[in-house]
Amino acid sequence: MNEENRTLDIQSLETAIKNQDVKNFKIAAKELHYADLASVYEDLNDEDRSFFTTHIDLSIFPNILAELPDTLIEETLERFNVKEQQKILEQLIDDDRADILQDVSSEARQRYLALLRPEEMEATRSLMRYDEHSAGGRMTTNVARITSGMTVKEVLDILREDQESTESLARIYVVDKEGRLIGKVRLRHLAFSSWDTPIDDLVQEVDMTILASADQEEAAQLFSKYDMTILPVVDEYGRLLGIITHDDILEILEQESTEDIEKMSGIVGDPSEETYLNTSVRTHFKRRSPWLISLALISIFSGYIMFRFQNVLSSIFLLALYLPMVIAAGGNSGGQAATMVIRAMTLGELEAGSTIKVVFKELRLGILLGLFMGTCIAGITLFILPAFIHPEFPDHITLPLFALSVSTALAIQVSFSTMAGALLPIGARIIKLDPAVVASPGITTLVDILGMATYFTVARTVLSL
Amino acid sequence: MNEENRTLDIQSLETAIKNQDVKNFKIAAKELHYADLASVYEDLNDEDRSFFTTHIDLSIFPNILAELPDTLIEETLERFNVKEQQKILEQLIDDDRADILQDVSSEARQRYLALLRPEEMEATRSLMRYDEHSAGGRMTTNVARITSGMTVKEVLDILREDQESTESLARIYVVDKEGRLIGKVRLRHLAFSSWDTPIDDLVQEVDMTILASADQEEAAQLFSKYDMTILPVVDEYGRLLGIITHDDILEILEQESTEDIEKMSGIVGDPSEETYLNTSVRTHFKRRSPWLISLALISIFSGYIMFRFQNVLSSIFLLALYLPMVIAAGGNSGGQAATMVIRAMTLGELEAGSTIKVVFKELRLGILLGLFMGTCIAGITLFILPAFIHPEFPDHITLPLFALSVSTALAIQVSFSTMAGALLPIGARIIKLDPAVVASPGITTLVDILGMATYFTVARTVLSL
Repeated sequence: MNEENRTLDIQSLETAIKNQDVKNFKIAAKELHYADLASVYEDLNDEDRSFFTTHIDLSIFPNILAELPDTLIEETLERFNVKEQQKILEQLIDDDRADILQDVSSEARQRYLALLRPEEMEATRSLMRYDEHSAGGRMTTNVARITSGMTVKEVLDILREDQESTESLARIYVVDKEGRLIGKVRLRHLAFSSWDTPIDDLVQEVDMTILASADQEEAAQLFSKYDMTILPVVDEYGRLLGIITHDDILEILEQESTEDIEKMSGIVGDPSEETYLNTSVRTHFKRRSPWLISLALISIFSGYIMFRFQNVLSSIFLLALYLPMVIAAGGNSGGQAATMVIRAMTLGELEAGSTIKVVFKELRLGILLGLFMGTCIAGITLFILPAFIHPEFPDHITLPLFALSVSTALAIQVSFSTMAGALLPIGARIIKLDPAVVASPGITTLVDILGMATYFTVARTVLSL
Repeated sequence: MNEENRTLDIQSLETAIKNQDVKNFKIAAKELHYADLASVYEDLNDEDRSFFTTHIDLSIFPNILAELPDTLIEETLERFNVKEQQKILEQLIDDDRADILQDVSSEARQRYLALLRPEEMEATRSLMRYDEHSAGGRMTTNVARITSGMTVKEVLDILREDQESTESLARIYVVDKEGRLIGKVRLRHLAFSSWDTPIDDLVQEVDMTILASADQEEAAQLFSKYDMTILPVVDEYGRLLGIITHDDILEILEQESTEDIEKMSGIVGDPSEETYLNTSVRTHFKRRSPWLISLALISIFSGYIMFRFQNVLSSIFLLALYLPMVIAAGGNSGGQAATMVIRAMTLGELEAGSTIKVVFKELRLGILLGLFMGTCIAGITLFILPAFIHPEFPDHITLPLFALSVSTALAIQVSFSTMAGALLPIGARIIKLDPAVVASPGITTLVDILGMATYFTVARTVLSL
């Protein structure tokens, strides 16, 4: 299906809902992917959502439900009667089911769990034990699993029975009688072998596994470093618990990038699962205001320094011309350094022992950038400034001396901020804080204060004020 | 293999290289994944690289080569003789081969192309026609492709022959005699069907395809929205050209996130393929200095405004106390709004028609944040400030009036900056600029200037200076 057809189908679905036209609703819904159906549902008002849930085909609804943001899960499930709820919950893939049950109120969770068959309830409960952001919380237990000693025919017969509920058949895992993972078989090797081949002839070693308790980010790093399709999840005894598949990884990567980017702008809390437009002004406010007000209060220190240097500024008011520049240059250079270092950490490029190398690199860079910018500003002050402003100085001060003062302050501020920008994320990691949190605007506010102090201290010293 | 073993194997490989110990080098190399081998190679000096390329098993080297950063490709290939080069190039998967040939000098490219067999040369040339960042540039042509009318047995026989060179067998694509894509067959359905089943009974509709000329980001969005494993790439006539697989997508996502994050910090140029530590100070300098110096120059406007309002500041120097706060609050709130909007765009949440909704949302948010922060600062000024500083005002000015002035300026600055932060990325998209480029620090610098003007204009008006 191409993009254009999809847009048309979405439009006819929306029209059908608006007109409460059951027949065309069913036709359009059949054509669309569940991800599109979920987006449409999300944007409906209460009444239209009822129409949607009344007439949607119950066999595809579980897929739609799994795509909805956390905050919509319970109110959506409550639109169905108990029998329908049971049908929906039973059809969900087990990791989706566990996720969904983690997103509803504890009262609803008990009710929903009670609707499941005993073995499903057990599987769901055991998945819910793991943190939502751990490998165990991400895995599915619907893994193709066989024990050694069978023939290809026997394996194919077993797999055929379970084929609809098994998330991926690309790798079939072989376990011993204690459930410990001993190897894998590729479906292509089964398909191309004669039916009487012993399965043990086809078993290959498993490259990588991950502990259920490991962070989801670790799983994502393994996937992208080693070009994996499926990652088996094991417990501390090496028993196969489930698998993480590439679609879980895409979700993890999207979530982690959004988190990093948002933290770097001082936005608090977990990224909303809803889209930007569907997130309420209230939620946006709650996520943005804490850092905004904290940083504003901290900025008063910067203002206080300026206030205390009143006599320096009053003696040569031309100093005001470069004040915002020196301050801002610190925030910008510190922000760049922090971004580079944080990104390198996220991509797993900086091991714990590389701090010295980073310090040395950013020290050289900071000095280079500081000298470069200081020189530019000195040149501008000496050769361009006089054409626009006639500078008035006290007797003992000359234009070159003034240029020396502002360019020295700029060079110090840029060098220092570059170092600070690189070191703060590393320091944050050492004390187990998320590096992205300390990135700009946190760094900006900090180096603003230092820049203010540097600027006036250098001016007072160089210009003997 | 677990994390600990891997670290040990890497260490013994490094030791073997240092000691020029061929036997242990071969043992350790055998244990390691090519991605790890590539990381080790990247960190070696010239002499050790020669040792590595002399003794590494030529059959795994193509995989290592594909993992190396662009800048290392040519010098690495040149360490081999022509016969070895030919062997390496022949073994590469076609999309990797095309990528690699795009990264070398044109002289080397001609030499390498001449080493290929005619049909490989043809395939490589046709892949190189597509932009590296398009769907065509990312796809592999090693796709499992059959024509309709066969039986399961015939299909399995054909696939068995090509199984080693085919990137994925999870989906087998069915084409008509003009090569147009008509459907797909899943390997699991082949495996579970009797050998005389006509293949046409198993053909399913293809959900999505992408044009070879489409941007790689579009492919990534389709993958994550529709939980896909494999995306077929077609030309404008619907002919199947190749497939994009999930490992291509992980690479695209990593690249696009890094690009966005770096642009948002004013770092220019494509993200380096080398790690942070392996990138030279010179390259870092080149990527960071252009924005730093440009922004510094623009900041002079901010300073000029302050310089021109000398008399306002001199009349009530206490205004300096809140000046940095008002300025910085603009940058922070604008930066947050820009981050939210840019991220929503990247995730495909904001269609072109939603500008009005964004404006309305950020307008409400901006006013809310502005009023909240203004009220806080008014309170602090009235009730906390007098405990620390005894404010001296000219006769006609009172503390409440002063508080009104600074909190009004703050409220205006925050409201306005929030709007600006949300609108600039949208504006950038309309004029086909990358939204991430205009994000902070660009927005910060712009709202700094406006904040300076707002602060002094409000003060002059409210305080009648």
